[in-house]
Amino acid sequence: MHEEASRVFGFTRGGYTRGFTLDGLDVTLHVDGVGTKTLVLERLGRLRVAGWDCVVMNTNDVACDNYRPVALVDYVALPSSDERLFREVVEGVAEAAKRLGVVVLGGETAILPGLARGVDVVCTVLGVRERRVENLAHPGDVLYGLPSNGLHANGYSLVRKVVEERLGGDYRAVVKGVDLAEELSKPVADYTGFLLDAWREELIKAAAHITGGAYTKLLRILPPGARAVLEMPRAPRIFEFLLEEGVPVDEAYRVFNMGFGLVVAAPGSNEDALRRLAEKHGYRLVRLGVVERGERGVEIHTPYSDKPIVYTG
Amino acid sequence: MHEEASRVFGFTRGGYTRGFTLDGLDVTLHVDGVGTKTLVLERLGRLRVAGWDCVVMNTNDVACDNYRPVALVDYVALPSSDERLFREVVEGVAEAAKRLGVVVLGGETAILPGLARGVDVVCTVLGVRERRVENLAHPGDVLYGLPSNGLHANGYSLVRKVVEERLGGDYRAVVKGVDLAEELSKPVADYTGFLLDAWREELIKAAAHITGGAYTKLLRILPPGARAVLEMPRAPRIFEFLLEEGVPVDEAYRVFNMGFGLVVAAPGSNEDALRRLAEKHGYRLVRLGVVERGERGVEIHTPYSDKPIVYTG
Repeated sequence: MHEEASRVFGFTRGGYTRGFTLDGLDVTLHVDGVGTKTLVLERLGRLRVAGWDCVVMNTNDVACDNYRPVALVDYVALPSSDERLFREVVEGVAEAAKRLGVVVLGGETAILPGLARGVDVVCTVLGVRERRVENLAHPGDVLYGLPSNGLHANGYSLVRKVVEERLGGDYRAVVKGVDLAEELSKPVADYTGFLLDAWREELIKAAAHITGGAYTKLLRILPPGARAVLEMPRAPRIFEFLLEEGVPVDEAYRVFNMGFGLVVAAPGSNEDALRRLAEKHGYRLVRLGVVERGERGVEIHTPYSDKPIVYTG
Repeated sequence: MHEEASRVFGFTRGGYTRGFTLDGLDVTLHVDGVGTKTLVLERLGRLRVAGWDCVVMNTNDVACDNYRPVALVDYVALPSSDERLFREVVEGVAEAAKRLGVVVLGGETAILPGLARGVDVVCTVLGVRERRVENLAHPGDVLYGLPSNGLHANGYSLVRKVVEERLGGDYRAVVKGVDLAEELSKPVADYTGFLLDAWREELIKAAAHITGGAYTKLLRILPPGARAVLEMPRAPRIFEFLLEEGVPVDEAYRVFNMGFGLVVAAPGSNEDALRRLAEKHGYRLVRLGVVERGERGVEIHTPYSDKPIVYTG
């Protein structure tokens, strides 16, 4: 199609967003939804988390490219009119927007009988930036992770399959010490403030939000001739539980964040300053690996398999 | 909820949008989706129309408040990965965006097994304007309609009910001279260029895009102390057909556009210039009524009932 070139299909080298200049302002629009996590949250009576997640997923993404989120609109689709469910979602949106200083400019509620079986929650964020960044790691950079808050909002189709097929569909069960209701309703961690500070202080070269596609997202921040090599620590209990329940290791690192919701690339000389900044924002900074010269790709050593997982492309 | 005040729930006096100033630029974000029309379009193999509609519904809305649409992102949800359906939709988005001169900044494709039963298509548009307009009609203004292109993208839940319950669910039937497949897959008319020209030339005082809620939308452009009185002509065949198939008259004017997708308010002295402008954009201009002093409300005289339909609120 003639206009295909103007679209962004998933991967964009150097970042998460496509921006343009509007009367001298460097702006972006970014859209993302919570996906099938809402099906689990609705069951657990915690749809407020869907509203929160929807905002934070987007603001984390745009902040990876140094855009400050300034405004948003939300879209909530429901199979039938349900004021209570709707309220839960928009309260979560409002809470996140307030925390992040983002104006909620409006929203659309769509009642979609025959089309929606559950609640779909989508946000679009407008971001602006004062300084363009390439968002590319370079050989010699160190890769650091910031801990996630559980599963975040990705991998829920796979998680639901595990719960339905292996655990009898009980989302409130406590299995092998894992409280499913608690684990499956944790909100997405907010890295936005950390990222904007890190860019402003010029402490990082690149940032990858570990969402859909998980560690394949690192490909986005690698230029040709650079490869990422990670030595991952043991993952938090929920991820080891999912491995125990039959999720293959290579699939796990392609679907789940495995303990880190954000990976940044920075010169090792910035480590102390970066650690202090992360701690100021409530996060530990964990050294995960390095960027080396070589064929563009990601190599992940995990405690769960002898051979490394490799992504190229 | 503490943040409720920052949300726009449907009606905003004076317009369709909520805007804000960003470094001196008057901008808005606006989100809208195609709704259950996609279920019919998918059946008819015409999902490309959903992509078109999604863009034009949004650009018509923002242009009612004199915002020029400049960029958009789309969101397409599917029950399972289907490259063909997805392509159809985004080709329609690209076609409309090109026609309107709007940059497609990106998009999100969500695969939602268990949540989506059909294709959901949503767009968010970024608009900017050089001149603020109140978008309010005043007593003495004349109300003019611009013809719609069939049903546009509203009322499909009701249309589907009629087809399923009264016509055996055959969306390709020709009934009483009505070719359902053709009628139900017509794209939304593009009023964006006309509206921006009409605002620039200061020919109109207010504009109402007749979408969800149909003629109740006129309440949006009426200040306190002003009432709209419309003398509607006979509606195009598809609407009379729906009346014949049992849709009550008052419901029809609250759900369907009944032949006019846009209503503008203007001083009668602008009529000739406004007519020329409409014709330049390919539309007839039809005088539908007047704005009078009185209790705020809408009074619609139709060829299909003795008593007028009245909306207040």
